[in-house]
Amino acid sequence: MTGGAIAHDYAGRLARVAAAAEEAGLDALVIGPSQDLVYLTGYEPLPLERLTALVVRPGATSVLLVPELERPGALLAPGASAIETTGWLDGGDPYHDVARIVGPAARRVAVGDQLWALHLLHLEQALADAEFQPAGPVVGGLRARKDEGEIDALSRAGAAADAAFGRLVADGIGGRTEREVAVALAGYLLDAGHQTADFTIVASGPNGASPHHEPSDRRIAAGDVVVLDFGGKLDGYCSDMTRTVSVGEPSAEVAETHAVVREAQQTAFESVGDGVTGEEADRAARDVIEKAGFGEAFFHRTGHGIGLDVHEAPYLVTGNDRPLETGNCFSIEPGIYLEGRFGIRIEDIVALTGDGPRRLNEAPRDLLVVG
Amino acid sequence: MTGGAIAHDYAGRLARVAAAAEEAGLDALVIGPSQDLVYLTGYEPLPLERLTALVVRPGATSVLLVPELERPGALLAPGASAIETTGWLDGGDPYHDVARIVGPAARRVAVGDQLWALHLLHLEQALADAEFQPAGPVVGGLRARKDEGEIDALSRAGAAADAAFGRLVADGIGGRTEREVAVALAGYLLDAGHQTADFTIVASGPNGASPHHEPSDRRIAAGDVVVLDFGGKLDGYCSDMTRTVSVGEPSAEVAETHAVVREAQQTAFESVGDGVTGEEADRAARDVIEKAGFGEAFFHRTGHGIGLDVHEAPYLVTGNDRPLETGNCFSIEPGIYLEGRFGIRIEDIVALTGDGPRRLNEAPRDLLVVG
Repeated sequence: MTGGAIAHDYAGRLARVAAAAEEAGLDALVIGPSQDLVYLTGYEPLPLERLTALVVRPGATSVLLVPELERPGALLAPGASAIETTGWLDGGDPYHDVARIVGPAARRVAVGDQLWALHLLHLEQALADAEFQPAGPVVGGLRARKDEGEIDALSRAGAAADAAFGRLVADGIGGRTEREVAVALAGYLLDAGHQTADFTIVASGPNGASPHHEPSDRRIAAGDVVVLDFGGKLDGYCSDMTRTVSVGEPSAEVAETHAVVREAQQTAFESVGDGVTGEEADRAARDVIEKAGFGEAFFHRTGHGIGLDVHEAPYLVTGNDRPLETGNCFSIEPGIYLEGRFGIRIEDIVALTGDGPRRLNEAPRDLLVVG
Repeated sequence: MTGGAIAHDYAGRLARVAAAAEEAGLDALVIGPSQDLVYLTGYEPLPLERLTALVVRPGATSVLLVPELERPGALLAPGASAIETTGWLDGGDPYHDVARIVGPAARRVAVGDQLWALHLLHLEQALADAEFQPAGPVVGGLRARKDEGEIDALSRAGAAADAAFGRLVADGIGGRTEREVAVALAGYLLDAGHQTADFTIVASGPNGASPHHEPSDRRIAAGDVVVLDFGGKLDGYCSDMTRTVSVGEPSAEVAETHAVVREAQQTAFESVGDGVTGEEADRAARDVIEKAGFGEAFFHRTGHGIGLDVHEAPYLVTGNDRPLETGNCFSIEPGIYLEGRFGIRIEDIVALTGDGPRRLNEAPRDLLVVG
């Protein structure tokens, strides 16, 4: 399995992450199966009980340690020529191998955020003199600065999600169950070029008050407000968009609540830019919703970065005082959730380009009335 | 998402795992999204940057801590009534919440093997006085002792894999690419009742020497030896079987090599039982292959446990001195891999029942000659 059809500069990425590790005072990074590994090498094994780990050290060639029986596959990875690949045998001790590669002088080691605890605990024993920390701030910081090719991939994924939504609106959703609509939407994502449809939330009427509702057998009826939140992967990069529609004419209350969310989303969009922190962007959306009296009903963060992972840095959330920067791509997705009644959310992916923020979803953000 | 269609005794499992934790001298178990969590609660969220964690303590009700926006879904899990479910809000500190639930007196805490390193590192900070260890020996030990319902589920998955293989043999595979055969096999797994087809290794000719070869565009021709290793999930439980076939009549060398692997597989099957260690079972297969002069060409373990995960305890591998016991289900899959030429592997899932070992795959283990 490899990371999509785009050619990436793995050697450059490895050099940059090694430099960032050095700047952070780290002796080594240890990265397991994850999109971090895909980003750095194009290699995408499943995370398993057998350790697979890329060891990155400042000023040295990166080493990919893999179970011996995976070595032939690892050598086919797009970035394999930029690293050294070595196998370990069943019954051996791969943690000792990592320790040997990292070296006995290592004192500060960062591990990939998604490495299994099982592996980290064994590494902590094998490298007893080292302190461990998450590699997220180093690798995630690099991954968050997308290059043009990556923003283009995210744009294509966003356009495909828009197209899927457009088909669903044209079909209408009244009279069908949430599950039926979810299946149709997943099919439209694939038709529009996605390789996988990873999630299709269809939350109608009172179910909309649960932000991550699983599609049920509830039949969608006239008068329902329906939250549609869906995405997948296209050439290795993720889509993720949300629109809220009304089956038949909405009540005045629904229309007014939707207008609040739309204003919050627009305000946050206008707020983001180089140097604005994740917390400030979150605050921009939250202020609008609080001022309208719905503060309690918006109980999640405003957004998350997106790229190879559907959730990655930067996060638009209280407490994130890191400034956004050019190349960041993230969702802006405020919502209002009224228990037992309905929910509303609007979500676009936004790229911070040299010319300011640009939305990668362009489907109408009005409260669409659908059949 | 929930863990399949079978009704399980979650309260009993939680009580047993709490007792096992106490016996192991642990103050708490912290289990993230994984099949451990499915086993204990039926809840199957995706592992994400937002912490989801089940905290199990001896003598206390287990607590499932979830992101607030996932709480409605978590409450629908089959085992929800046996636990207490509580939400944390974006911008909050879920690690502090776990520390509060675990309690300041906790000194020995075990974490689920698949918990993300990001979460473990934060927990290590929030519980600075505690020592952490993998929960695998406790939870994996329980999971490895399958009850009748679980063995039945694995049997049905195995029978479905047999059926898929039977259809493929009837079709023949000569003249098609590995990828085409892999796609057909995946379809047959689904037709036979699998909800997902998770892997379909089709390794023809020299590609067979790579045990985990990814299906390629190589066209399968007369004279090829082809390793077929495939499986998926049926009602939450995994299938995993391997057969090696010959397209047209095999050479004497291929037939003899296949006979060695078959004898190794049969010998290991006859060796397993209550009290036999994982290492001894591995040794039983390995001895046959070494005696035939192919020791270097069998460079992976003989088998792995299987259940909710395709790889889980017990492992049939050098160094595993834990005895097998009734209820264990595991693969027996010796192989011989001849670089640049061909590979041979035969794999069945075997259940240790009160009446001894029973194979859950029954497709012929002869070297089948296919079209």
